[in-house]
Amino acid sequence: MSLILHSPLDMHLHLRDEKMLENIAQASAHTFSGGLIMPNLVPPVSSKEEIVAYKNRILKAIGKETFTPYMTLFFKSTYDKTFLESVRDEITAIKLYPAGITTNSEGGVSGFDIEELRPTLEAMSELGIPLCVHGETNGFVMDREAEFVAIYEKLASAFPKLKIIMEHITTKKSVEALDKFENLYATITVHHLMITLDDVAGGMLKPHLFCKPIAKRPEDREALLRVALNAHPKVMFGSDSAPHPQHAKESCGCAAGVFTAPIALQVLAELFEKNGASQEKLQAFVCGNAQKIYNITPLPKKVVLEKKPFKVPQLYSGVVPMYAGEEITYSIKEVYNGR
Amino acid sequence: MSLILHSPLDMHLHLRDEKMLENIAQASAHTFSGGLIMPNLVPPVSSKEEIVAYKNRILKAIGKETFTPYMTLFFKSTYDKTFLESVRDEITAIKLYPAGITTNSEGGVSGFDIEELRPTLEAMSELGIPLCVHGETNGFVMDREAEFVAIYEKLASAFPKLKIIMEHITTKKSVEALDKFENLYATITVHHLMITLDDVAGGMLKPHLFCKPIAKRPEDREALLRVALNAHPKVMFGSDSAPHPQHAKESCGCAAGVFTAPIALQVLAELFEKNGASQEKLQAFVCGNAQKIYNITPLPKKVVLEKKPFKVPQLYSGVVPMYAGEEITYSIKEVYNGR
Repeated sequence: MSLILHSPLDMHLHLRDEKMLENIAQASAHTFSGGLIMPNLVPPVSSKEEIVAYKNRILKAIGKETFTPYMTLFFKSTYDKTFLESVRDEITAIKLYPAGITTNSEGGVSGFDIEELRPTLEAMSELGIPLCVHGETNGFVMDREAEFVAIYEKLASAFPKLKIIMEHITTKKSVEALDKFENLYATITVHHLMITLDDVAGGMLKPHLFCKPIAKRPEDREALLRVALNAHPKVMFGSDSAPHPQHAKESCGCAAGVFTAPIALQVLAELFEKNGASQEKLQAFVCGNAQKIYNITPLPKKVVLEKKPFKVPQLYSGVVPMYAGEEITYSIKEVYNGR
Repeated sequence: MSLILHSPLDMHLHLRDEKMLENIAQASAHTFSGGLIMPNLVPPVSSKEEIVAYKNRILKAIGKETFTPYMTLFFKSTYDKTFLESVRDEITAIKLYPAGITTNSEGGVSGFDIEELRPTLEAMSELGIPLCVHGETNGFVMDREAEFVAIYEKLASAFPKLKIIMEHITTKKSVEALDKFENLYATITVHHLMITLDDVAGGMLKPHLFCKPIAKRPEDREALLRVALNAHPKVMFGSDSAPHPQHAKESCGCAAGVFTAPIALQVLAELFEKNGASQEKLQAFVCGNAQKIYNITPLPKKVVLEKKPFKVPQLYSGVVPMYAGEEITYSIKEVYNGR
């Protein structure tokens, strides 16, 4: 039994830089037609030169694979319209991080003063640049995203023409916000569809499943599944695949991030099948919805998955993937670049 | 400035066995006058011979220190009155684990059928043997203890003469149960007084703060602080200090347990002082209450703490303690065995 996915897109992807980029870029580029590349490098990607240079480093790392790096800029409230016009053609979106909320986000936004953000966000509205947001407050770890929904709603009301993407949502409350505001969208990772906090900390503590936002409660996961499996038109797949070297995960202070790029499509195929969701829904979740939301035309790529057990490697270039050493039921059979 | 504690007791302690026991027993025996020793060895301590032999191994590991190992038996519903009478003098309590809920608890209780438990628990009531319970269901990790409170209440009602100790409580709900049933008591660890889930998983993931029950929400910690700092007469200090080798904590699946034995009293001294709680309250929390609840007379020991920074070692015999490498404000100045 096989399953064909056309031009799958990963609308939230960390490719890192330098050696790590060279090591892991292929894991995404092999099976995805494109990905929205997060800008939280050190220093963050925040000028035209940096975007272009980073894009070129990514293209070099990808080599011959068919893969579009959809670039993003690290949000700063100092960006003015002239600057944004100058970078418009180089970027697909701008990513906003609350200051200090996750890996390399120190230069992010502190407080969400609408008037302070207004010039930049209005310019983005006018230029049609979507705003991607890591939506967490600095509150208690299980409440951070739910608390941030009020900020999403404030932004959505204040800038009704701005497309706002709630990144890697993990809660029922964020899912509910989707239908309250026309201009709110969301990405969902594969790991948040598969796990709850129980998987991270309910048995042994599992550093390789530790991420930000942290996996939440069973009822939250169910809400995510509902919109993902139905390919709710405002929801897109974004892996948030985030590689860290093994030693940075298995240590006395483990970095946040789950590396799913090489197994994401296989796991999604299994998940959709198990839940009786159609191939069309999966196609919409991993490509069609993003195409419409971002108004992009992905490069043609055909990924053939087959129902054949795949033993996930323990490591990909020193990075432990999700389900390392375990068997998953779908494999990548073939990938055709082009039509 | 110094502070004297008399005969401090640790009413929930894992000393393990063999090499680990030899390595870490002194860490408790140096500053505590006694400890309630958990029976979850492999196999669990469940016969008179095993209790006596384990006690002797502990006494050997302790060497010349003044320290009473208050022994416990691993609860089984097959224990009858004759058996319990035969072990009465060797034990201070019996510890009940729900099956599979924590380290080495596979042989514990499945389901809590009062009628199945009745013969053993009635015999314990009659013989005045307290029941210590690891109170967690197999539900969602943040709900397990709160869900178990209904079982505590069922047990407390069904066996009103049985002293039931809710071990290492972590939730507001358990604190509230204390005042509802005359025969419910509790131990509280030092780490649950210091941390919430935020400390475990809110920044980096901290395997050395991972334990069962997992640290909960800020309002839960506040409830624990309220009764500990006031030395609520039904509450005792029990460290649940649980050593694991460093590699078992810093790995792809980290074992549950926080090693606090060598720093517990110092951290408690700082905590009580910071919160304006008196030395008398601390004395009651770490000794007086347990003495009354268990009707025990601890060996005389005088522990002098002084307000002098102490840099916590990175390792004690291969075990990473809580606050490893950090500076705490109190040190152990002197310990006098005897009066």
